[in-house]
Parts: sequence; C-alpha cells; structure tokens
Amino acid sequence: MSEEKIAVIGGTGDLGFGLAVRWSLAGAQIFIGSRDEKKAQDAAERVKETANAGGSSRTQDLRVSGCENSQAAAQASIVVMAVPFPAQAAILKSIRGSLKDAILVDTTVPLAGTIGGKPTRILGVWQGSAAEQARELTPPGTPVVSAFHNASAEVLQDLSITPDCDILVCGDDEPAKKTLFSLVKLIPGLRPIDAGPLEMARIVESMTALLISVNRRYKVHHSGIRLTGLPAEARSG
Amino acid sequence: MSEEKIAVIGGTGDLGFGLAVRWSLAGAQIFIGSRDEKKAQDAAERVKETANAGGSSRTQDLRVSGCENSQAAAQASIVVMAVPFPAQAAILKSIRGSLKDAILVDTTVPLAGTIGGKPTRILGVWQGSAAEQARELTPPGTPVVSAFHNASAEVLQDLSITPDCDILVCGDDEPAKKTLFSLVKLIPGLRPIDAGPLEMARIVESMTALLISVNRRYKVHHSGIRLTGLPAEARSG
Repeated sequence: MSEEKIAVIGGTGDLGFGLAVRWSLAGAQIFIGSRDEKKAQDAAERVKETANAGGSSRTQDLRVSGCENSQAAAQASIVVMAVPFPAQAAILKSIRGSLKDAILVDTTVPLAGTIGGKPTRILGVWQGSAAEQARELTPPGTPVVSAFHNASAEVLQDLSITPDCDILVCGDDEPAKKTLFSLVKLIPGLRPIDAGPLEMARIVESMTALLISVNRRYKVHHSGIRLTGLPAEARSG
Repeated sequence: MSEEKIAVIGGTGDLGFGLAVRWSLAGAQIFIGSRDEKKAQDAAERVKETANAGGSSRTQDLRVSGCENSQAAAQASIVVMAVPFPAQAAILKSIRGSLKDAILVDTTVPLAGTIGGKPTRILGVWQGSAAEQARELTPPGTPVVSAFHNASAEVLQDLSITPDCDILVCGDDEPAKKTLFSLVKLIPGLRPIDAGPLEMARIVESMTALLISVNRRYKVHHSGIRLTGLPAEARSG
C-alpha cells in the first residue's frame, strides 16, 4: 500500500477524479479538494463508489475524503493541481499558504478551448507554460513538477480500461521528480518519462492539443503517446 | 516500385540523406538537391553506396541523381525541404520559381541549437512554425505539408535498423496529405498519422526538442513517438 498523502485540487473534475480513483485503489490517502467543501465530499464518495464498482477487493482500505482546497493541500505531501487553466492562478494563490513541505504537481494545459477558443490551440502564457506560471505562484521552497497532461481523464475514470500512455514529467527538482515517478507507477499502464526541466512543459502541455486534434481526425476519445527507442529500464517503467 | 519523383532539398544533410536512401530503396526516383551541384552529385553516389551496402537486391534499379536545388525541384512531383532552419527561407526563395505542380514537404524544426542556442529549445517563428513560414514563401497553388520532424536521421541512414516511429503529418490540403501518407509508408517502420491542419506543426516541430531532451536524459540517440488508442486502420499504417 502506498503511504503517500495526495491532495487532488480540482478532484471534482474529470482528470482529478480519475487520478483519485486510481491512486485510492493503489492505497494512497486522497484528499479531494474543491472550492466548495460539500462538492469535495460528494466527489470523495463517488471516488469510493467508482473504485468499488471497479471490482476492487480493497473496498475497506480506500482512504478518500473531501475538503476545501486549502484544507486538502495542508494535509498532503503531494498536491496535484487538476483545475481548468482559467482557474489555475486564483486557486494557486488561495492554497499557497497551506503548502508545507509538499511537492506541487501541475497538470494544467492552457487550451484555448478553456476560454471559448478551439480545443486544438494553446494559449500563450507569459511565463512560457502553465507549469512555469504555477512555479511563479508557489512558495520558493516548494518543488514544482509538471505531469499527467496527456493522460486520458476518461480512461482513468473507467476501471475496465488499462491506460496505454507515457507520462512525460518535467521539473527542476530531481528528488521531487523521483517521487512523482513512483506515483505514476502506482497506476497500471502508465509509464513515467523524464522529459527534462520544467520549461519543457511548454512542449508537453501543447501535446494535449495535438492529441485532441488526432482524436477528432480519427474519431477516437483517448489517443495517447508512447516513446520508443528508450533503454530497457525506462521500458519497464 | 514507386513512381514518385522526389526532390530532397538538403539531401546532403543527415535527415535528407536518410530519407533519400530509404525512398530510393523503395524504387522512387530521387533528385538530391544542394546549393552546390558537385556536392549533390557526391551525395547521390553515397546514397547508392549506402543503399547497396544495406544488402538490397535492387542495386540496378536505384534512381538517384544530384543537382543544384532549383534543378532538383523542377524535376519532382514532391519537393522535400530538409535543410537547417537558418537556411530554410533563403533556399525556399531560390526554388519557388521551380515548383510546378509539386507538393512541398517541410521537415524544418526551428531548434535554438541551429543558431547556437540549446538544442532542447525552440525559436519563435512569427508565422507560428517553420511550416507556416514555408507556406508563406511558397506559391499560392503549391500545397504545403509538414512531416518527418521526429524521425531519427541516424536511424534512417542505418539500414540495419528498422525505424520505430510515427510520422505526424500536418497540412491543409487533404489530397497532398494522402500522397504524403503513401510516401511515409514506403519506409518500413514508419506510420503516418494525420495530426490536423498545418498550424499543428507548431506543436509537432517542438516535439523534436522534447525528444532531444529525452535522448540526453536517457543517453540514447533516437527516441521516437508512437500514438496509442487509434483505430485499427491507423494502427496498420
């Protein structure tokens, strides 16, 4: 069982919910965060229901609770930002006082679709990427890692499907990245890949728009990415 | 045998050379272009030698010649731009009068490394991408397609290796894209993927920088990309 305490800020949304379901099944303790405590608590119940319906034998072990965002962040060693881009900055400001020794994991993609534009386009972010904006809004001692942009929220929520996707991890803090690697590996089918420093999130974030374009062209819902040509230790995840 | 007539502008460079080797083995007629006709002719000889050394039984069939860039372009139905980013605009201007009913295939990646910066960074191109710059510099009737950014030049040149990589194709002209799909399929191991309109080249070009970052992290030379979750007809290439 994983001993990690993970806050999923925006855990009521599709990606956050899917991650919460998968990590709770792996034994991690999950704090679903929402601006609205009641919504967070409802989502926590639904996470348990979804995980149980997925045929887990660990029903009793699931440790999922819901709280207001800053309360969720305060209890966690890993804080995952899984909110729409237009909400990212305000929510980060609201929780940054509650980040203690946590790692901040940013999953935000600045899709033009989040402000009414095309879902296959990316907004320009002055800092270079949503992840670098997150770093700017996070206390200096808090490591920021960027990941999970290209994971299908739909697949994560559907326990009848095993994901088939690499998770490209960007960040400047190597121990924090290692911790994140172990979190990725808690979810069968996902493989963590070290994509380099946080600034590479500019590229990884944009790849979500590319996958949306491919989904539309091929009339599928969850295209993903696998890297080839890596050494065996990366291949085995 | 392919009946295509393909000009590879910059066919003396690694990517162009590798594509010329592979396509010549598939039976296409290749015109290696260079600013220097002699260099182009030398490269054409080396393409034949490399293809022959690769154990082909088709030695007699190889149709590869070298010419000055605009001469190469004038003879081809498909003109592949495989030059470093800093040379792209000037060379396009020099050949655009020679493009008849050809499709222009741009492979250019605006890597910062090409002007002395980091190889893991991308230069901002005013038009959005190198491919869109190519479109601006191409006669109105010439379809522009963007492809081959993420193929390893090293792998293409080494006939003992079968590539393991998807080719993300961007463009606004559907028939031209279809033609390019058939060109991609001439090379075993490569699978063409329709990534959407030409503007998506902004993302696909940048993915080369990401792969360079991954190569450095994992101490490999030719990481590539495969998409997952596509329907069977795409899977079979």
